[in-house]
Amino acid sequence: MDRTRLRRKPQRGSHDAAVIAAICDDALVCHVAFTSPEGPVVIPTTFVRAGEQLYIHGSAASRMLETLAEGGPACVAITLLDALVLAKTAFHHSANYRSVVAFGRGRRVDDQAEKLAALAALVDKLEPGRSAACRAPNAKELLATLVIAFPLTEASAKIRTGGPLPDDPDDVDLPYWAGTIPIVTTRGERVPAAL
Amino acid sequence: MDRTRLRRKPQRGSHDAAVIAAICDDALVCHVAFTSPEGPVVIPTTFVRAGEQLYIHGSAASRMLETLAEGGPACVAITLLDALVLAKTAFHHSANYRSVVAFGRGRRVDDQAEKLAALAALVDKLEPGRSAACRAPNAKELLATLVIAFPLTEASAKIRTGGPLPDDPDDVDLPYWAGTIPIVTTRGERVPAAL
Repeated sequence: MDRTRLRRKPQRGSHDAAVIAAICDDALVCHVAFTSPEGPVVIPTTFVRAGEQLYIHGSAASRMLETLAEGGPACVAITLLDALVLAKTAFHHSANYRSVVAFGRGRRVDDQAEKLAALAALVDKLEPGRSAACRAPNAKELLATLVIAFPLTEASAKIRTGGPLPDDPDDVDLPYWAGTIPIVTTRGERVPAAL
Repeated sequence: MDRTRLRRKPQRGSHDAAVIAAICDDALVCHVAFTSPEGPVVIPTTFVRAGEQLYIHGSAASRMLETLAEGGPACVAITLLDALVLAKTAFHHSANYRSVVAFGRGRRVDDQAEKLAALAALVDKLEPGRSAACRAPNAKELLATLVIAFPLTEASAKIRTGGPLPDDPDDVDLPYWAGTIPIVTTRGERVPAAL
């Protein structure tokens, strides 16, 4: 589709579903953009991928989720920053990243089995197996929670890897360090809740 | 202003400029939402804060930057994920985060001194002092680069810290672990560029 055509640096792009899925699965946060009467709005939220869709959730009072539930047009970005790229020239400084941008309309998940499965997947994303190691939502909690499915069918990925671009011949001998600084995201030591 | 009123969980919110500034300065990536003829679009990009504005930059061919340069309404989100919060119930699982959402319109930076200062600040954000340790942009590079200032005057911060919410009395004795898993972002060992 036209709006997933990669306008900038298409050589970094991909429409491969496996590439898109891997980026989604590595990320814990997505950014959801929608249109409000006052203009565009973008809100961060946790999410999980299941097949060719994303699930997001939250309070039934959330304006972002409400807008998606109503089927308004939206855009979701998922971004992983992998490294800072330092070149001999300011101009060639860059970043290595993996990102997905998906366009579409949300769908409110009303089917109880799908809703429970989505909520379990959201919890399992925080820690594998976690949905079996906590109490599942009860009827009241389910009612207070809105789950939205968002399609990945109109999505593209963009990836930059490697070092800085080759310098222009005039810059090759500049006495500056060039290379990459990895950005590493890890899980720290678990902190038990206060009793 | 009305659109920075915190609709959800206002007790987590702040309009304090110092709080907003600190979150901006800790983050390397922001997400910029704008409206296109096909609907809302959100794009990740690097940025830097200077006083009460953000600077973003990129190719003069970028549609996102072009839209901002034209002064169209936009929204910028900056998000830091600090921890995953595991509770005894699926419902109370959460995340600790610090985020800023800013509404406004971009301004193309045409003044050459401001443009050079913004580009230096963008490079210095990757590594302190870096703008003095690489070649500054030349006239051709400056021409190919669009720099946009975006105001933080209509912005709000939202912060969640701490452990899971207290469980309902019925859930207190459930035999599940509860607590937080810190998400730690660090800079790895520098990798020199291939010669």
